[in-house]
Amino acid sequence: MIKVGVVGGTGYTGVELLRLLAQHPHVELKAITSRGEAGLPVADLFPSLRGRVSLCFSDPVSSPLADCDVVFFATPNGIAMQQAAALLDAGVRVIDLAADFRIKDIAVWEQWYGMKHASPELVAEAVYGLPEVNREQIRGARLVANPGCYPTATQLGLLPLVEAACVDPAHLIADVKSGVSGAGRKAETHTLLAEAGDNFKAYAAQGHRHHPEVCQGLARAAGQAVGLTFVPHLVPMIRGIHATLYARITREDDFQALFEKRYANEAFVDVLPAGSHPETRSVRAANTCRIAVHRPQGGDTLVVLSVIDNLVKGAAGQAVQNMNLMFDCAENAGLEQIPVLP
Amino acid sequence: MIKVGVVGGTGYTGVELLRLLAQHPHVELKAITSRGEAGLPVADLFPSLRGRVSLCFSDPVSSPLADCDVVFFATPNGIAMQQAAALLDAGVRVIDLAADFRIKDIAVWEQWYGMKHASPELVAEAVYGLPEVNREQIRGARLVANPGCYPTATQLGLLPLVEAACVDPAHLIADVKSGVSGAGRKAETHTLLAEAGDNFKAYAAQGHRHHPEVCQGLARAAGQAVGLTFVPHLVPMIRGIHATLYARITREDDFQALFEKRYANEAFVDVLPAGSHPETRSVRAANTCRIAVHRPQGGDTLVVLSVIDNLVKGAAGQAVQNMNLMFDCAENAGLEQIPVLP
Amino acid sequence: MIKVGVVGGTGYTGVELLRLLAQHPHVELKAITSRGEAGLPVADLFPSLRGRVSLCFSDPVSSPLADCDVVFFATPNGIAMQQAAALLDAGVRVIDLAADFRIKDIAVWEQWYGMKHASPELVAEAVYGLPEVNREQIRGARLVANPGCYPTATQLGLLPLVEAACVDPAHLIADVKSGVSGAGRKAETHTLLAEAGDNFKAYAAQGHRHHPEVCQGLARAAGQAVGLTFVPHLVPMIRGIHATLYARITREDDFQALFEKRYANEAFVDVLPAGSHPETRSVRAANTCRIAVHRPQGGDTLVVLSVIDNLVKGAAGQAVQNMNLMFDCAENAGLEQIPVLP
Amino acid sequence: MIKVGVVGGTGYTGVELLRLLAQHPHVELKAITSRGEAGLPVADLFPSLRGRVSLCFSDPVSSPLADCDVVFFATPNGIAMQQAAALLDAGVRVIDLAADFRIKDIAVWEQWYGMKHASPELVAEAVYGLPEVNREQIRGARLVANPGCYPTATQLGLLPLVEAACVDPAHLIADVKSGVSGAGRKAETHTLLAEAGDNFKAYAAQGHRHHPEVCQGLARAAGQAVGLTFVPHLVPMIRGIHATLYARITREDDFQALFEKRYANEAFVDVLPAGSHPETRSVRAANTCRIAVHRPQGGDTLVVLSVIDNLVKGAAGQAVQNMNLMFDCAENAGLEQIPVLP
Repeated sequence: MIKVGVVGGTGYTGVELLRLLAQHPHVELKAITSRGEAGLPVADLFPSLRGRVSLCFSDPVSSPLADCDVVFFATPNGIAMQQAAALLDAGVRVIDLAADFRIKDIAVWEQWYGMKHASPELVAEAVYGLPEVNREQIRGARLVANPGCYPTATQLGLLPLVEAACVDPAHLIADVKSGVSGAGRKAETHTLLAEAGDNFKAYAAQGHRHHPEVCQGLARAAGQAVGLTFVPHLVPMIRGIHATLYARITREDDFQALFEKRYANEAFVDVLPAGSHPETRSVRAANTCRIAVHRPQGGDTLVVLSVIDNLVKGAAGQAVQNMNLMFDCAENAGLEQIPVLP
Repeated sequence: MIKVGVVGGTGYTGVELLRLLAQHPHVELKAITSRGEAGLPVADLFPSLRGRVSLCFSDPVSSPLADCDVVFFATPNGIAMQQAAALLDAGVRVIDLAADFRIKDIAVWEQWYGMKHASPELVAEAVYGLPEVNREQIRGARLVANPGCYPTATQLGLLPLVEAACVDPAHLIADVKSGVSGAGRKAETHTLLAEAGDNFKAYAAQGHRHHPEVCQGLARAAGQAVGLTFVPHLVPMIRGIHATLYARITREDDFQALFEKRYANEAFVDVLPAGSHPETRSVRAANTCRIAVHRPQGGDTLVVLSVIDNLVKGAAGQAVQNMNLMFDCAENAGLEQIPVLP
Repeated sequence: MIKVGVVGGTGYTGVELLRLLAQHPHVELKAITSRGEAGLPVADLFPSLRGRVSLCFSDPVSSPLADCDVVFFATPNGIAMQQAAALLDAGVRVIDLAADFRIKDIAVWEQWYGMKHASPELVAEAVYGLPEVNREQIRGARLVANPGCYPTATQLGLLPLVEAACVDPAHLIADVKSGVSGAGRKAETHTLLAEAGDNFKAYAAQGHRHHPEVCQGLARAAGQAVGLTFVPHLVPMIRGIHATLYARITREDDFQALFEKRYANEAFVDVLPAGSHPETRSVRAANTCRIAVHRPQGGDTLVVLSVIDNLVKGAAGQAVQNMNLMFDCAENAGLEQIPVLP
Repeated sequence: MIKVGVVGGTGYTGVELLRLLAQHPHVELKAITSRGEAGLPVADLFPSLRGRVSLCFSDPVSSPLADCDVVFFATPNGIAMQQAAALLDAGVRVIDLAADFRIKDIAVWEQWYGMKHASPELVAEAVYGLPEVNREQIRGARLVANPGCYPTATQLGLLPLVEAACVDPAHLIADVKSGVSGAGRKAETHTLLAEAGDNFKAYAAQGHRHHPEVCQGLARAAGQAVGLTFVPHLVPMIRGIHATLYARITREDDFQALFEKRYANEAFVDVLPAGSHPETRSVRAANTCRIAVHRPQGGDTLVVLSVIDNLVKGAAGQAVQNMNLMFDCAENAGLEQIPVLP
């Protein structure tokens, strides 16, 4: 059994991680920390876990994290970068679900996240945890930077095109939409049901933290810098991301075949038949990305539709997938839930 | 492996049954019938099942249902009563998720369901599939009448009180609320998102088909006829039933202890600590009923709050629980999904 | 023109009041105060008011409230009781949309609202602003206590029965349901879309602040104390209250006629034809209460269904209706909006 | 008073038209037709109109439409083209809210709408009812083709750029999102709350009927053919359209000033301050289009955000605006409702 600790279990990625880990055949949950809720049974905060998770939240200081095989950080940005080094030194492997280790360029990270990075040397070591790109490095990694939700949907949708160099990499467009759980469980006015319900809006059109993360991944795939216009929107639903991606064709190809071939061996990426429109609910509560490719009117602009559950393939599920790779489990261990529809 | 057939797999109870059966460790899915969709891969209609259910819908006439160990009817009312006898004769056990065999009084059934009953003799044989009441009879049953969604939530909430004869059985009140999936996947105006969304209403206040079903179950527990006012409401959500139940106390007792004791050995009924308010999402996609008991201001009226997922404990999950009992599986086999929250 | 001031314009009752007042033919908006947002144009916070409300929020201290004819308090509980006396002394009439002056029994108020009352003498003077009960007193009032949202829907639904003394006043039941805007615009976890969406729950089953307010109103109508079980629920919608009311018949009557007669001259109470089920959306954004009366199976329990928009007839609209009475306008001046459906 | 008839009053554009017309100071409603509901009081179908619209639906054949000054068609596509000629001959002016007269190229129309056009000569005469483009022609028109919902939001967002010839007209992108009321009040599976709720998807990525309509309008403004990629999406909300528009800059300009100047005299188009993100709820139930212009990271791609209420500025409200122009009323007569927020 893999001994697992979770730092920061009171948010949505935290409770989703607990849902998945509690059903994982090879995991023994050792500790869940929360400064604010120490002593409280986890199932008191999340009644969905009654009878399934018997742990109480523990104080981060006194938690037996160093005795774990792996520790997940489901914390706000800026926490893992302070605590990861000590755990790694103790021989514990670390998977950070926040953004601390995602961006290799420290200056860019500091600009977007508005703080000084506490352990730049670990950024260099960290492996970006997108298994469809970095599977082998993840297996051997001590420290994995779990990708953001938008970046997962966007990169999986654009990678086949960028890798094949058949579209203009300087003028990509990602019109991305997210359910409100992506904003976390913080009490904020703009995500109240009475504000976000029966409503639709764009936000951060001038720039979003996930923009440099996507650009980094695509640039690596393209072997050159990419230009990306990235506009996020808030959808009145709980879970789900839908990325609508636009790319100008520069070289003809069989694009449907390109996608099918690229993901032929990927258990968690499902390329739909030509002409399909994936729905976010078709992946609800499951670790799957579904993708469809369109070429409207046979023109020179490709449209790729990519959906994930932001809390699963966009966060906790992908983190478990990474853990499976790191500990030599079947990649889909504990991740075989069928999506919940309707 | 239990060889399983499903008649009528295109509605919500059908797809939910497929979700559960496809993950069940002892089930082999043999056939899914649909007159209208024969030949269509199930996963084309429900992309959530892509890669998990490879069957096509088959025509009811040519389907190998008689080779199954058990057949589920996830059909509209009035179908199972026509087809069950032949299957039973062929040695196949039958679980009907519709209402055909729920009500013992044929005249009452015919009045509420507006048709002549095709096999009244089977009504007498059928076991009402509420395991918390009829567990032993279910084990031996050839034919199980799976309870309705409202009746499951309402009976589980009232049974301890009625069995203990500590409330007035002549003036029970059930103010019940359901998500729209309870209305099924039929195209109807009143369940359109633009009609039912951001809206709340009661319906069928003059009488609802589930009223006689609940009364039958409570009367059996009470050993006398009961009086029940039953008002259903439509909630702008997808899954979930919340029953708010009112009963006048006629004999003092420790009501919290009464409930805890009644359900102490029930894996799928969770009595919450005193003072709790169960949320429907705390059982979303899981086969659990959560119950809380209140006595406002210490008065003479008890308030019981009971929640289930109408498609799981209120339909497909309970049907699988019944199958587990009939085939001597662990009662929770294939039913260990943790609720999906948020 | 009536010179109007609003204290506390940043919540939902505040913005709704502004929507109605800005369209009122006899109103001149003089001041909107907010300690936190002083200096900010109102339309910057609420873009729906762009081009329609040109005022900025002003600091309460320097606002010309004393020059107004009437001041509305759309503040949290406990503010109006501190500021009303000075305004009344300056000859300004006051309408409080919070709870400060609703309950005549100071001890009861202090128990439920958890603070010492700052001006008990004004409680005695204040008129409870339910025009269907207190129309004449409201006309002459200096200080009006605008009713709560649940109390408006509940009292309008039960008053005809209680006044006619045809039901058991000791065992009334109000199963009430509210959209989330009833909880206000405060940032709180439990009203996030990701928490309250696709979910249904009861809350405060042990006791709610609106319980004594309803009991006070019904007792006055009954001429005796009443017993009421009152259970509120949170509905995943933005606006709307639906009260489902249960009463035991003690004297036969034509209940449909009773309701129609009671409200025959009320412009804002609409008794539906027998057999109807009012929907909350049928009053969305309008100052209307729609009511239907049912007697299921001809039994001894009446079921009354009563719906309002909690922000209009349950708050801001009723406040404007009271202002109209106080200033001798047509009672429906500025309140003729047709409900927004769908 | 303008004598008004409405053909087809049972859909969402119909009931919205009735809401607006019933509050219009210069309108007398003469007839509302419905083949299916003839004889039924309008307010029985739409209780929101109780006490406000006393007409019954009348049979189209016997309705006094020829006595009206203007008749609105709120019918499915293909009806107005059969009936408009007779009304025009009788001296009645016609506003068609369906698509029959929107597209000048008959062959293109017949291809997209899948039927033979019944009165091509009227297509030539019809004026496209976008007042911000065709105000003067609308004043004198006998027959107005009211624009589609997506085309209104998209054209208003792109027109300033296309007219100023400062973007590449051959590679425009419109990523558009609509609430489900845009699909009408027909009973269809995919717009059930249990299907469309808590879900997001694109549809018709290969081609949508509104695509040629938008292209026609933009081409006229550009003085040349345009290329447009147009991808619609379904949002789990009732009302509202959000268009996110992408255009490549070909000539530098002050784009914020360009938009402000273009719409300076337009009462129903509101250009927001730089950096804004319009929300659909900020125009809910009102005849307003709000627009914001962004240039992310100062790059060469402009992003325009444009929101309307699909039933008002995208349908019934714009139709009333056109009627006001045709009958020399103030353009905003009957259209001054403040948006309903929250």
